[in-house]
Amino acid sequence: MMKTIDLNSDLGESFGQWKMGNDEAILGIVSSANVACGFHAGDPAGILKTLKLAKENQVVIGAHVSYPDLVGFGRRNMDLASHELTADVIYQIGALQGLAASIGTAVNYVKPHGALYNTIANDERQALAVIDGILAVDSSLALVGLAGSNILRLAQEKGLRTIAEAFADRAYTAKGELVSRRETGAVLHDATLVAQRMLQLVTEGGVESIDGKFTPIQADSICVHGDSFGALEMANQVKAILQQAGITVRSFIHS
Amino acid sequence: MMKTIDLNSDLGESFGQWKMGNDEAILGIVSSANVACGFHAGDPAGILKTLKLAKENQVVIGAHVSYPDLVGFGRRNMDLASHELTADVIYQIGALQGLAASIGTAVNYVKPHGALYNTIANDERQALAVIDGILAVDSSLALVGLAGSNILRLAQEKGLRTIAEAFADRAYTAKGELVSRRETGAVLHDATLVAQRMLQLVTEGGVESIDGKFTPIQADSICVHGDSFGALEMANQVKAILQQAGITVRSFIHS
Amino acid sequence: MMKTIDLNSDLGESFGQWKMGNDEAILGIVSSANVACGFHAGDPAGILKTLKLAKENQVVIGAHVSYPDLVGFGRRNMDLASHELTADVIYQIGALQGLAASIGTAVNYVKPHGALYNTIANDERQALAVIDGILAVDSSLALVGLAGSNILRLAQEKGLRTIAEAFADRAYTAKGELVSRRETGAVLHDATLVAQRMLQLVTEGGVESIDGKFTPIQADSICVHGDSFGALEMANQVKAILQQAGITVRSFIHS
Amino acid sequence: MMKTIDLNSDLGESFGQWKMGNDEAILGIVSSANVACGFHAGDPAGILKTLKLAKENQVVIGAHVSYPDLVGFGRRNMDLASHELTADVIYQIGALQGLAASIGTAVNYVKPHGALYNTIANDERQALAVIDGILAVDSSLALVGLAGSNILRLAQEKGLRTIAEAFADRAYTAKGELVSRRETGAVLHDATLVAQRMLQLVTEGGVESIDGKFTPIQADSICVHGDSFGALEMANQVKAILQQAGITVRSFIHS
Repeated sequence: MMKTIDLNSDLGESFGQWKMGNDEAILGIVSSANVACGFHAGDPAGILKTLKLAKENQVVIGAHVSYPDLVGFGRRNMDLASHELTADVIYQIGALQGLAASIGTAVNYVKPHGALYNTIANDERQALAVIDGILAVDSSLALVGLAGSNILRLAQEKGLRTIAEAFADRAYTAKGELVSRRETGAVLHDATLVAQRMLQLVTEGGVESIDGKFTPIQADSICVHGDSFGALEMANQVKAILQQAGITVRSFIHS
Repeated sequence: MMKTIDLNSDLGESFGQWKMGNDEAILGIVSSANVACGFHAGDPAGILKTLKLAKENQVVIGAHVSYPDLVGFGRRNMDLASHELTADVIYQIGALQGLAASIGTAVNYVKPHGALYNTIANDERQALAVIDGILAVDSSLALVGLAGSNILRLAQEKGLRTIAEAFADRAYTAKGELVSRRETGAVLHDATLVAQRMLQLVTEGGVESIDGKFTPIQADSICVHGDSFGALEMANQVKAILQQAGITVRSFIHS
Repeated sequence: MMKTIDLNSDLGESFGQWKMGNDEAILGIVSSANVACGFHAGDPAGILKTLKLAKENQVVIGAHVSYPDLVGFGRRNMDLASHELTADVIYQIGALQGLAASIGTAVNYVKPHGALYNTIANDERQALAVIDGILAVDSSLALVGLAGSNILRLAQEKGLRTIAEAFADRAYTAKGELVSRRETGAVLHDATLVAQRMLQLVTEGGVESIDGKFTPIQADSICVHGDSFGALEMANQVKAILQQAGITVRSFIHS
Repeated sequence: MMKTIDLNSDLGESFGQWKMGNDEAILGIVSSANVACGFHAGDPAGILKTLKLAKENQVVIGAHVSYPDLVGFGRRNMDLASHELTADVIYQIGALQGLAASIGTAVNYVKPHGALYNTIANDERQALAVIDGILAVDSSLALVGLAGSNILRLAQEKGLRTIAEAFADRAYTAKGELVSRRETGAVLHDATLVAQRMLQLVTEGGVESIDGKFTPIQADSICVHGDSFGALEMANQVKAILQQAGITVRSFIHS
């Protein structure tokens, strides 16, 4: 039985005058912050504000790297050449490292965002381009990827430390894959149910799939959201049920 | 009499499919490369290419930070809040540091670009915002500024190393200021004359002003251009005349 | 005594995934919609959605043109060359005209946004660049400007129809100028007081200044906001008190 | 035998300080100008300059609409939602119409650019999104598409006038499709050969395929380039050989 688990969330996603999420509240819950780097969201001054809050809350910082698509919020597939994607990843990590260094903290991992996250779970060319970028800029950075996906194996082969991620509010197929958002039941809204599933994930190493069967999922981190009152409530319940069961919520990094 | 001088030039100013300058040629001449960071020019893949060339040529790398204005090439004044400007400067330096680290090299100095360069020569609020950004991300970075300008004094007071810069192809007033580009004779086009003036600058510590008087200018670095055949020819002549006079062209950094 | 007045508000200011304002609610109140054109806010799909709502509510549409500064929301001064500003204004008007035409409606006026609005109230060069742009693309478009400002006179001299604008929630100096936002009391928060002031504006042709004296203000339109519950409430009260006094709220265009 | 043919070229592709192509020279050759609209290239002031030159040369103007990807020059596939693509197309056409109107001319057709051009030749969803956008903003606009491609049939079914396009410097398969740029011989460099092929295209209704067989191609317009001395020379030879054979080079629009 696992004794610790990481909770991560997407942060720093405001842009200039446009606000998104409640970074202050979610940083009181999670142990890892995936911070936007300016390509899908985040302007430098806003990112810096989020990094300060993360530091104050002793939350570990990751670079939430994306395709360059502000208007599409990084959610639209883009067919970048490998050398473009590698350079884009390095640029974003470097920018976040600079902002983190300016307040005496550091970036510890990389989580690809949105369409890039989904694409590299299967597209080996783009996956390798991302891995190459991380290795080139700082090979001690860990890579967060979908639990069970190909990119984690690829990254390990290349020498990267990996963090397998599960999604608290998503249904899984019997194969342990995410049910597509296009299908009914793909997203779970019942906070209590979600919390119980995450307890099962940590204590039993899997959850019940959408077909009603137990599906093994090896996850080091659970992704929760903080962009609405309901999301925050769900994140709080997940954390509470885990802690009540004696499980420590903390990052695997710097443990 | 000075025995060494730095030659610097603006590089990495292509953007995607749009090419600008001849980075390969000018990197064979200069000792310092002011590399665009994506805010006035430079996409990650293009910047990386320029950094590789700079490393191959053992040219010292600086971050050419700018206002966020691609379409205006950073040449239009923008009234940024201080905390915005500071964060923008940190973001750009960090991004370039990341790209440099990815190929095993580093950023050694910061040179503000275009409208930002001109503004901070006189605007103390914006100057301090830039200085704060540099100090926060890496206080060992030097700041390149206009020889004789207020920002160099300010930066030194704050503990930054500074590099005073002269412009090879620009006329100076009797007070040692640049003649405005709006006035006749502001830009010099005769490569031989420019080379002789730069020799005088290094050996005598000043040049003849537009009024015909000797103007003292204390410069650590001379800015030359590489964006046309004529510019490259001028840069070559400046370097040749200096070397013939026994002056070593090299960066003051890592000497 | 005036019998009609226009109420206008800024709309279409969402951008991709980032939401701003409550366009649906405010379009039930105002008679004119200043719709963002993509330079300070507004993506094409989002703008189109707002235009459809405006059409459904029979609200007159204006182009809310701006400096090209998404991250700064068009609120930072930018020193554009005149030919750049003129072309930027034409481009934005044209884009909005295209989107309006695609749903069978049209653009009837132009209101500069943010820093551009403030700058052209006094800067004749930039004011003329904006006027030139409007005249070139469609000389039947009206220009909305600060009541009493120089740009209205300039625009009339050039043959543009103008709409003088007052701000419901702003204090005025004895000279009829807006009290700077940096001063205490510049922004009014009491919806009832604001509504009474706007009734006075329409019936008496002026309001009490911050110094307690009556200040004449000739306004054709009143700007209200819809970006918060309080703002919507204020807009509602302004409209209600005007209508109770027998004043018709409608656009001067297409009357 | 056809007596007239259109020659078109991509123009207005500079961006701010970055210059691309030789619009002045190519406008002396072609009858139709595909003008960038700001999404893959073209800033408002630069576009306006190109439109003025097109008008002076009595060249018909088309909107060269693109995915929103400046750094990728619109050459990278992007998976836009249909309503996003439709709105993006309308926005770009409108912006160009505004700029054209400001100098007393007009937009007559639409040619999708780069990755969008290639994608909609086969992807019916995106093709329909583009067609919907054109129809909504101005159903009298013609659509330029790849000769023989599905989108031309789709557009005609929807009521759009279409213009089938051949590429002067590209090899064709026996089926009349373009040989992929990844294959040897895909791009032709011999200006004399290219000119003879285009004469054959107009007089015989087809060209020799890469396999050596005659391939029928029904084309209303031939795309030529103007971005290098060699390209201009090729465009000149194509026009010269056509005119020597008694064929009139002119747009099918406004004939």
